[in-house]
Amino acid sequence: MSDIAAIVAEIAAEMREATERGQVADYIPPLACISPDRFGMAVVTAQGEVFTAGDAEEPFSIQSISKVFSLTLALGAVGDALWRRVGREPSGSAFNSIVQLESEHGIPRNPFINAGAIVVADVLLSGHEPREAIGSILHFVRALAGDESVIIDERVANAERETGFRNFALANYMRAFGNIRHPVERTLGVYFHQCALAMSCRQLAMAGRFLMHDGRNPATGLSVVSPRRARRINALMMLCGHYDNSGEFAFRTGLAGKSGVGGGILAVAPGIASIAVWSPGLNDKGNSQLGALALERLTQRTGWSVFQPRPVA
Amino acid sequence: MSDIAAIVAEIAAEMREATERGQVADYIPPLACISPDRFGMAVVTAQGEVFTAGDAEEPFSIQSISKVFSLTLALGAVGDALWRRVGREPSGSAFNSIVQLESEHGIPRNPFINAGAIVVADVLLSGHEPREAIGSILHFVRALAGDESVIIDERVANAERETGFRNFALANYMRAFGNIRHPVERTLGVYFHQCALAMSCRQLAMAGRFLMHDGRNPATGLSVVSPRRARRINALMMLCGHYDNSGEFAFRTGLAGKSGVGGGILAVAPGIASIAVWSPGLNDKGNSQLGALALERLTQRTGWSVFQPRPVA
Amino acid sequence: MSDIAAIVAEIAAEMREATERGQVADYIPPLACISPDRFGMAVVTAQGEVFTAGDAEEPFSIQSISKVFSLTLALGAVGDALWRRVGREPSGSAFNSIVQLESEHGIPRNPFINAGAIVVADVLLSGHEPREAIGSILHFVRALAGDESVIIDERVANAERETGFRNFALANYMRAFGNIRHPVERTLGVYFHQCALAMSCRQLAMAGRFLMHDGRNPATGLSVVSPRRARRINALMMLCGHYDNSGEFAFRTGLAGKSGVGGGILAVAPGIASIAVWSPGLNDKGNSQLGALALERLTQRTGWSVFQPRPVA
Amino acid sequence: MSDIAAIVAEIAAEMREATERGQVADYIPPLACISPDRFGMAVVTAQGEVFTAGDAEEPFSIQSISKVFSLTLALGAVGDALWRRVGREPSGSAFNSIVQLESEHGIPRNPFINAGAIVVADVLLSGHEPREAIGSILHFVRALAGDESVIIDERVANAERETGFRNFALANYMRAFGNIRHPVERTLGVYFHQCALAMSCRQLAMAGRFLMHDGRNPATGLSVVSPRRARRINALMMLCGHYDNSGEFAFRTGLAGKSGVGGGILAVAPGIASIAVWSPGLNDKGNSQLGALALERLTQRTGWSVFQPRPVA
Repeated sequence: MSDIAAIVAEIAAEMREATERGQVADYIPPLACISPDRFGMAVVTAQGEVFTAGDAEEPFSIQSISKVFSLTLALGAVGDALWRRVGREPSGSAFNSIVQLESEHGIPRNPFINAGAIVVADVLLSGHEPREAIGSILHFVRALAGDESVIIDERVANAERETGFRNFALANYMRAFGNIRHPVERTLGVYFHQCALAMSCRQLAMAGRFLMHDGRNPATGLSVVSPRRARRINALMMLCGHYDNSGEFAFRTGLAGKSGVGGGILAVAPGIASIAVWSPGLNDKGNSQLGALALERLTQRTGWSVFQPRPVA
Repeated sequence: MSDIAAIVAEIAAEMREATERGQVADYIPPLACISPDRFGMAVVTAQGEVFTAGDAEEPFSIQSISKVFSLTLALGAVGDALWRRVGREPSGSAFNSIVQLESEHGIPRNPFINAGAIVVADVLLSGHEPREAIGSILHFVRALAGDESVIIDERVANAERETGFRNFALANYMRAFGNIRHPVERTLGVYFHQCALAMSCRQLAMAGRFLMHDGRNPATGLSVVSPRRARRINALMMLCGHYDNSGEFAFRTGLAGKSGVGGGILAVAPGIASIAVWSPGLNDKGNSQLGALALERLTQRTGWSVFQPRPVA
Repeated sequence: MSDIAAIVAEIAAEMREATERGQVADYIPPLACISPDRFGMAVVTAQGEVFTAGDAEEPFSIQSISKVFSLTLALGAVGDALWRRVGREPSGSAFNSIVQLESEHGIPRNPFINAGAIVVADVLLSGHEPREAIGSILHFVRALAGDESVIIDERVANAERETGFRNFALANYMRAFGNIRHPVERTLGVYFHQCALAMSCRQLAMAGRFLMHDGRNPATGLSVVSPRRARRINALMMLCGHYDNSGEFAFRTGLAGKSGVGGGILAVAPGIASIAVWSPGLNDKGNSQLGALALERLTQRTGWSVFQPRPVA
Repeated sequence: MSDIAAIVAEIAAEMREATERGQVADYIPPLACISPDRFGMAVVTAQGEVFTAGDAEEPFSIQSISKVFSLTLALGAVGDALWRRVGREPSGSAFNSIVQLESEHGIPRNPFINAGAIVVADVLLSGHEPREAIGSILHFVRALAGDESVIIDERVANAERETGFRNFALANYMRAFGNIRHPVERTLGVYFHQCALAMSCRQLAMAGRFLMHDGRNPATGLSVVSPRRARRINALMMLCGHYDNSGEFAFRTGLAGKSGVGGGILAVAPGIASIAVWSPGLNDKGNSQLGALALERLTQRTGWSVFQPRPVA
């Protein structure tokens, strides 16, 4: 396994030299001020080894990567009934598109576009105060990561609320169809806070372990979700995790992955590794430019693409 | 491996009893007259064993499954230059949708929707007569299947041409943008003939072997495409192989798969198996109702989902 | 002119017998409780004569008809600069559609669809408190009608605010593009109040007089808007006043007209008459079923279509 | 009436000096080679006087203006049954857009966008050979213009056929929905020939006389269409005659008008005048840049806008 250490270090070195680093998201000040020079990477293997490089211990705003955790929680709360309120198909549209909602009567295409994740947040709010729902998400992520130091960055949550007009539009629009069931301020309160989770690559890769272990948290041995559901979450990540760039990501890396506008990507090679990368510069589809490149090189050098032949056990 | 034989037989028996069998495609007579009672299945393992059940030896019209083979040929012919003329993203739209072509200037989203496959046929026609291009596709598929008895059903090709107004619309529309470069009758001549390939489940599963072997034909030991390209074709199949039902298929089966309106599905578990199923009844998205169900049960019982943990070799 | 009195009475009698009366808007209680049996009509001629029939003195919620008055006020306030924030083309879409805003960057197609009227309300709010902007609209309409008894129905305004999720979506969406410049609650406060204007057919037909007199209020002799602008408002009413039913309305009546979901229509035959009809049952496009029919019969019997030859003075 | 002569001459002089003349259509050679310096104008009044200026006697390709004549013929042939195959609403889209046809099942929005005019051509073809249908259109236009020298320019018709891929796409697409009922080559043969009518401004203004006279040809005294239908054709011209620029045209001129990509516009002031202008440079919506400007100035100076008050007879 020392091979992996070398590969991770090598990729981090290459990324340090990269010149095309994309554009840092600038729609809120707390994100706009991050240097595009940052790059971090953490790999947790099925055997429990951890390999890190670069700024792997630096917390960043995980943004839409949080949608993986809130989806997992919501499936635990309401089960497959969730799929009556959100679809499971790639949208073919941008992360914040509102077009399909009109012809599809307020049912978002999948839980990883903004509209879908807002519905998921609305589900998590049922029977709770926003503060409780936010607390349960934070608690859940800390448990998955095995790290109580994970926090929510209130400055980011506040900045999202002040500028999140498109998300207010999406939530109100779905409320008109009855697919948001709480006052939009409350539902978006949950949503903006989950997006403001601050985590390091190490923490994120640790939190993703259950997705490589068929739903089981290896630290506790307990099942987070059923094996079948874990595979389905991975499938959703692969098909929808990068919005209208999902095809490109799967094509290049062969991994299940979820990106965030903060520049992070959580990727899963089932049975092999949970991986987090972070570099704040984004490509024109809003996904981390160097993050995707680093993962492409990782799978080329390790053979971790799910489409690469592996012997059955 | 006798387990697999039992599982395949068991699934075929279950499918025989299924009552919701979908609707047989009725847009051309040669397809409309097939009984919805038919069901066939063939599994070829990485070890070369073949398991069949039901109507696995019965040739059927593979229709859009042919797009996998024509894409493979076109990548061999022009390499990554192909991606300047066709995208790699799920479309989020129906197989024959024309809407995106208008705003995206005649560049289809991916090679598995009709518009994309017509571009691929146009690429294969470059420097050739339609008859030669059709011949090279037939030759290629026979070589992949290791079976010279594979034929093109001229009745089907003719019927497609007589009723394929939407395909004529798509081709003319892309020609207006310069993305079809031959007279549309010639390009569509190639396209309609490739769709009219008649193959049995056994032949189809054999023809798909290179996709589970990282691009290598195990019968000849020769490389059909590079390992990297084989993985990418699998990724495209998983993300785009079932049109606006691709998310659902991946969610349920965890396999790379490509469906055809004749009721066939070719599915790949990389390193493990190439699988073909056939049942002519279609769901409301145009994909085989029982075919998808049979594959879902197969992966549940075998653990062949790409998202199921497997140890590294 | 006694002919007109007879025609108006005759049409009202016919409408009383009509059986297909459409569906009363039911999205807010104050509208839902109006009887579909109501029908009123008022005609004010260029000579100043007034002819009424049916429930012509009964105030109803003018809803979107108010957009004509707010547009007139906004053009007075900012002039042609308004057209940088809202277009002048038929949308081809429903009154509350959000689709075009995405590809057209938050610029609504015209000031008579909801999105466009919300922009107009935002313009009227510039430099004012909502209460002041609402007051100025009310003052303006009273002056046009020559009737200080026109009021705003607060129950309606409140009900709109409580259920107007689509309008909140539109406003937030445009705010994301910078085309709404005040907090959406304030802009929508103005919008919901203008829609809650309660007027009778008589009051409405009186308020529309300036549009038949090339912009001049005949009661005061003063110009409300320039002749050129008055003609342009009439053109906008004809092309966009009935949403995706505007073609049908122009085809049938040949008048400039603006409908409201309360069942009213204000129609103008330039130089001849200002007409208001009211019947709360709506067709499937949200326009008054009997109102349009009454206007069609009126123009057939009077020859008031703008497309009917008339000698030059 | 010598005023009109002066106004027409004055406008022609102003247009001669205009510097922003738009772009000449370049998709077929016979159009591309016309000089953007050309400008012609012809006004025929209700009294039968004719005023011309500039290149008013020069034949040009009337292109989509022909849709007015073919619609008139088709209404004569099948009456209101036509409206089951084509709508009467502004499309809100470009002249050659295909998007709406998908969701609206092959029914074009109106007879003046290309898709709608192709349906009209298909109607005219019923029971006839293409040559006969073309002949009857030519005969009809000659009779309206009172001028047997009007011809169809075969070079233009041929060039349209060779490059008209979008029109082939539209026709095939509608044929898939059953809304084109003849082989598309035949239907488009009629369509391409009608578009290739070559007429001078004088001929065109003469041919439009029936539209200012409530459907009656003043030269023969015979009714071409009923008064009601004439008004409706005028309404359609005003609402849909300039594609997604119709609002702008009505807003500026207040006339019913139909433009062609050859740079011509036929405009009607009912009861007052039939007007033809020609200048080959087009604006970004495909309508004559100077033609629209000339008509705007004409209505400003004459008061011929349908929205300008005129006394009842």
